[in-house]
Amino acid sequence: MMARTRRPIPRLEDDYSRAAAAKRLEFIGEATGARPEHIGRHCLDPAAVAGNVENFVGAVQVPVGIAGPLLVDGEHARGEFYVPLATTEGTLVASYNRGMKLLHAAGGVQTTVMDDRMQRAPAFGFDSAREARAFGQWVTASFDDIRQQADATTRAGRLHDIEQFSASRFIFLRFNYTTGDAAGQNLTGKATSRACDWILAHYRGVRRFCLESNLATDKKSSQVNILHTRGKRVTAEATIPAELAREVMRTTPEQMFLARQLSNLGGLLSGVNNNGNHSANGIAAMFVATGQDVANLAESSAGLVYAEVLPGGAYYYSITIPALIVATYGGGTGLPTQRECLELLGCYGSGKVRKFAEIVAATALCGELSLGAAVVAGDWVGAHERLGRNRP
Amino acid sequence: MMARTRRPIPRLEDDYSRAAAAKRLEFIGEATGARPEHIGRHCLDPAAVAGNVENFVGAVQVPVGIAGPLLVDGEHARGEFYVPLATTEGTLVASYNRGMKLLHAAGGVQTTVMDDRMQRAPAFGFDSAREARAFGQWVTASFDDIRQQADATTRAGRLHDIEQFSASRFIFLRFNYTTGDAAGQNLTGKATSRACDWILAHYRGVRRFCLESNLATDKKSSQVNILHTRGKRVTAEATIPAELAREVMRTTPEQMFLARQLSNLGGLLSGVNNNGNHSANGIAAMFVATGQDVANLAESSAGLVYAEVLPGGAYYYSITIPALIVATYGGGTGLPTQRECLELLGCYGSGKVRKFAEIVAATALCGELSLGAAVVAGDWVGAHERLGRNRP
Amino acid sequence: MMARTRRPIPRLEDDYSRAAAAKRLEFIGEATGARPEHIGRHCLDPAAVAGNVENFVGAVQVPVGIAGPLLVDGEHARGEFYVPLATTEGTLVASYNRGMKLLHAAGGVQTTVMDDRMQRAPAFGFDSAREARAFGQWVTASFDDIRQQADATTRAGRLHDIEQFSASRFIFLRFNYTTGDAAGQNLTGKATSRACDWILAHYRGVRRFCLESNLATDKKSSQVNILHTRGKRVTAEATIPAELAREVMRTTPEQMFLARQLSNLGGLLSGVNNNGNHSANGIAAMFVATGQDVANLAESSAGLVYAEVLPGGAYYYSITIPALIVATYGGGTGLPTQRECLELLGCYGSGKVRKFAEIVAATALCGELSLGAAVVAGDWVGAHERLGRNRP
Amino acid sequence: MMARTRRPIPRLEDDYSRAAAAKRLEFIGEATGARPEHIGRHCLDPAAVAGNVENFVGAVQVPVGIAGPLLVDGEHARGEFYVPLATTEGTLVASYNRGMKLLHAAGGVQTTVMDDRMQRAPAFGFDSAREARAFGQWVTASFDDIRQQADATTRAGRLHDIEQFSASRFIFLRFNYTTGDAAGQNLTGKATSRACDWILAHYRGVRRFCLESNLATDKKSSQVNILHTRGKRVTAEATIPAELAREVMRTTPEQMFLARQLSNLGGLLSGVNNNGNHSANGIAAMFVATGQDVANLAESSAGLVYAEVLPGGAYYYSITIPALIVATYGGGTGLPTQRECLELLGCYGSGKVRKFAEIVAATALCGELSLGAAVVAGDWVGAHERLGRNRP
Repeated sequence: MMARTRRPIPRLEDDYSRAAAAKRLEFIGEATGARPEHIGRHCLDPAAVAGNVENFVGAVQVPVGIAGPLLVDGEHARGEFYVPLATTEGTLVASYNRGMKLLHAAGGVQTTVMDDRMQRAPAFGFDSAREARAFGQWVTASFDDIRQQADATTRAGRLHDIEQFSASRFIFLRFNYTTGDAAGQNLTGKATSRACDWILAHYRGVRRFCLESNLATDKKSSQVNILHTRGKRVTAEATIPAELAREVMRTTPEQMFLARQLSNLGGLLSGVNNNGNHSANGIAAMFVATGQDVANLAESSAGLVYAEVLPGGAYYYSITIPALIVATYGGGTGLPTQRECLELLGCYGSGKVRKFAEIVAATALCGELSLGAAVVAGDWVGAHERLGRNRP
Repeated sequence: MMARTRRPIPRLEDDYSRAAAAKRLEFIGEATGARPEHIGRHCLDPAAVAGNVENFVGAVQVPVGIAGPLLVDGEHARGEFYVPLATTEGTLVASYNRGMKLLHAAGGVQTTVMDDRMQRAPAFGFDSAREARAFGQWVTASFDDIRQQADATTRAGRLHDIEQFSASRFIFLRFNYTTGDAAGQNLTGKATSRACDWILAHYRGVRRFCLESNLATDKKSSQVNILHTRGKRVTAEATIPAELAREVMRTTPEQMFLARQLSNLGGLLSGVNNNGNHSANGIAAMFVATGQDVANLAESSAGLVYAEVLPGGAYYYSITIPALIVATYGGGTGLPTQRECLELLGCYGSGKVRKFAEIVAATALCGELSLGAAVVAGDWVGAHERLGRNRP
Repeated sequence: MMARTRRPIPRLEDDYSRAAAAKRLEFIGEATGARPEHIGRHCLDPAAVAGNVENFVGAVQVPVGIAGPLLVDGEHARGEFYVPLATTEGTLVASYNRGMKLLHAAGGVQTTVMDDRMQRAPAFGFDSAREARAFGQWVTASFDDIRQQADATTRAGRLHDIEQFSASRFIFLRFNYTTGDAAGQNLTGKATSRACDWILAHYRGVRRFCLESNLATDKKSSQVNILHTRGKRVTAEATIPAELAREVMRTTPEQMFLARQLSNLGGLLSGVNNNGNHSANGIAAMFVATGQDVANLAESSAGLVYAEVLPGGAYYYSITIPALIVATYGGGTGLPTQRECLELLGCYGSGKVRKFAEIVAATALCGELSLGAAVVAGDWVGAHERLGRNRP
Repeated sequence: MMARTRRPIPRLEDDYSRAAAAKRLEFIGEATGARPEHIGRHCLDPAAVAGNVENFVGAVQVPVGIAGPLLVDGEHARGEFYVPLATTEGTLVASYNRGMKLLHAAGGVQTTVMDDRMQRAPAFGFDSAREARAFGQWVTASFDDIRQQADATTRAGRLHDIEQFSASRFIFLRFNYTTGDAAGQNLTGKATSRACDWILAHYRGVRRFCLESNLATDKKSSQVNILHTRGKRVTAEATIPAELAREVMRTTPEQMFLARQLSNLGGLLSGVNNNGNHSANGIAAMFVATGQDVANLAESSAGLVYAEVLPGGAYYYSITIPALIVATYGGGTGLPTQRECLELLGCYGSGKVRKFAEIVAATALCGELSLGAAVVAGDWVGAHERLGRNRP
């Protein structure tokens, strides 16, 4: 195609330093003709981001607004929370805030972590399907040994079980772990890798091996994760008295429910991974604010919404997020501003991840109701006109 | 559930000011017992974020690394680019950088914007399916009038066509727009809302109306968007000589191709929205860096990867991102650090959105090859051990 | 694997004769040790099945029961029908019959053919995505010529439009035809083949061509066909007064609706192609009875069910079958017993296919309500115990 | 809608008699003006179809052709088989026959039953997600008791395990049974019903119960069944030497493999439940011939095809049918002609169901290769022109 003399990005001996970052910024300024002034102004200690980024040059600053108080009746999160949302999309904070007000008046959001597991799913190939089946039986029989290998690599993780799926002459093993307060993709990778080394050393006849082949679908949405959970499976639910809906949302449960039915029908047609309204908005804003791995939004954007108009006229509404991948320790959670956002929620550090998952789900529920009501009440476009002034 | 005296978040007359932000920070510090010191330190002008966020308190700082040079042979992006990636996940920048090095040596990445459209999809209900069908026919016949209404609301957008989908006694109209350099969700919302007002005023017999019912699946992944494009549909492709793969990636095209086949098979089993490796990683990092609406990652995480080992042994590899939603104008793109990141790519402002889309796709392709090769060569877990030091 | 002397099936000069069939039956009797006595007893004229089957040996006899009267308020089917159902599954006819009784009392089933099209979807490969895009533009510009080629091959079919889908360096063209009273898979194959010959002769640069590559999904269920119709898209709908439901079905609309909500939720989890109950049962029985291509059940089993409890308490219920593939002419429709079954419905021969499609959909609706009510009323298992006596 | 005096179908005291059937035929003849002569001519004993059909009037006769010899190297099916195919679609038998010839020469088809289970999946609703979770834990702890209840209702079936899936405040229990030689939908219904009675009697707090809510997806295709098997999960595989492909199929493994890649890509776009060619054709024809429940084709039409060009140039090809629902006992298998078709395969009666499943899968594989090669070699449309003469 094209021939070029490639000018690699400069690296220094002491590469995680202000000097190295400055040198790189200067280099790309020169290379591109741009003059970045703000990227280099930040509160990060370059030495401290060594595990977060390579070729460090600085930081982007994402505006944070707060919504709340969010009233949560969880098992881990209890009481009122003020939720930091990092976003550049006007209306988002206001919309979540409106939903939080509604559900505060309704008595709060009940949250439950239904399941908790993280995966890595290697594939093993054989000469024939029959040999693949025999391998699957051996894996079942050897589970204790395999678990011992996996668990030896990590303090935070525990191998819970191995699901098996077959196609052609391959067996896909889905290793399910509990991972403590880490999201766990790396520890499960390491543990599964060790377990597979042991398997490969002890089982003859494996002709093909791949540590991951789309059965755990990291950073991708899939039916298997909707069915079987990846990260936390959290349900948030609330019941809104009819008069409250009318007063705060300017609509009725019946109207909202009819719109919900239509969304379900449309979703069947379109093959969507979420029959709700926009849970990715709130989840994305919390992920950026609290130093989560933002790419996990691919999976965490799936959602199952279920609603009922109760006999007395109140509106029961729930969202289940089947693959919410979050951490309160490691990764970006320890960076200065991100850590502060977690601290505002009382969620920084060990023992906090389920609390955080509950707050995320409760926040998502507020947004569902807020946007759902806005669409029905017809003031959706109006709100964007009023608040989203930075939009063309 | 619980009864509480709700303490609302303070707002000031001059709400987009340092004073208002500080007052809110103080308020939540008091309410939560946390003492946020870094969130308030930022380079943002509070008055300038009025269209980006409500209840503004400050900013989170996300580390940025650069990868490159990325050699692109696009129609809009041509030449070398240094790509800013905002991430907290160790290894990510290094992995993309490695892929860029490989594809630079291979002659670069060819990119093509295959399609470009943004949607809003209202639903209309009737007394019967037969009346729904009649409505659909009327819409087809009235297209010019409807377009006139829609187009009158926006300078940047143009209504291109209206796709119709039916189920039960409902017709879902998928309004397809071109939207210039904006992502366009808001302008399409406004234009479609106006068009629907006109429809509702001119067609009798509509019993139910909803401006959106899961046929455009904003912030959600869906088959309809994979088939029909939402935002930009971009393909990035490259051909890697066999010796280059061996040298840089420590594997062969044949081995990578076999792993690819296995990923396809696994993806069929799991019902995944992306048969590639991890395109969401690079896309997320570019979205955060450049002020995109991060929640769009839900749709933009879908990907179609296709590869071939060519007769001479070289490896043809491509990724098609069917719903890449990006902007170079409006939203968060004008914030100081985000704008600088776009400027580093020569992508800030009007007339740049396809260029930016091409760079995103080219970056994604580099990451696909890099991780794909790492998994095959077996050094995936090792790299995370070495670079991802902030992980538990 | 194994080495064998292969004994081919005997064929005679006059192969579609009783003699040839008898010779083959004798041959397999000898080869297998079985002594088939009934297969050879049938009312088929061997010469007349020449277009239906090869290596003809006889016939299987499938029991037929009738259900009805089914009251239909369609555009093509109007009045009462007695529906022949060929099945071996006890309870099936009784269940559909019960539903027909209910909906007769409710005033009948309204049916509407919403769309009608049959496809073939060839794929074209190029050196790059950019060339693929150029080809797509050329196809759009050349549509009239392409249509002329396609239409010249058939009297019954007309090319309506060509949808385009792209991925990597390929363009998939979905040719949509109307096909009169034939199901049309063969005529669309022939017409598209001719059109593609013309394309290949007139467009340079096509590197790969395949007449079908899973974008029309013949004999397979797919989202594209649910969205875009394959065969007939038919909706059947009815409204059941509350007291009628209680009386005939021993349940209430409210209870049935709640069960429906649960089915929708379960279907989201399981990734099902039909949120209804069992429409494949009635459709299969009608397909076998009337000489349809039974393999089309793969597509025709998809269904979209939508229900509402109306303000006054009545139950609105509908099913949309998005890919109902039927014929009243050609294929197996002219065989003696199959033709009689079509004649019982007044549906044999030309000009009848939409009438038949409406009756199929109306029948399906009756079965949905019948089983839906039975599951809710708790007499489902009981009915199978009582009627399905040939089951272990 | 319409008011009618309903004329019910006549029933006699001795309803499963020639007299009753004749009376009904006469009745519908009168009602419709048709004069069915052939439906009443059959070899069925009306008394013997009492468990297969209600309102019996006669039979349809479906032509049967045979294909073979099919060479199978299974665990249950071993050797040569002549396969009866009941179809009305010209070319079908010829196409399968051609594939059988190819794979006979290649040494036969290896088949493996990878899994075997039948389901019923009731849903239980609670006041909250938390109570749903508690119920799930109780079910796990009470498994032995539940199994005892379920197993007490059936000799053929055994409850193997209960998978749990949650959404909102519901738990879906997927009861997995082995069912011997029966397809098992009825026995699992009965067993699960009994188990649920016991559950409902012993667990307080169940607010909603439904015996089936789309998590077993009877008569419907779903991802959960592709992942988790419904009926038999069977893989058929074969390796074709390159020269054989060229000779018999007039194409090469490389060309077929490229077409396969394109089918995979198209299938990703279209969201298809089967990346193969047309397995539903052969499976439908065997289902009709052997008295299977034809509606199960909805599930059994799903297929996972995987192929490789081996280093030496041979073509490895496999199909996995994840939800093949078959029986060799009960239902329609005992009807005269259907039983003979099973006997031709040595598959009638107890202890034969896995053998039959293997033959079905081996047949499907032959059809995949035959059509796959025909499409690539370009003689597909030609074959239909030549053989499918009864087509318009």
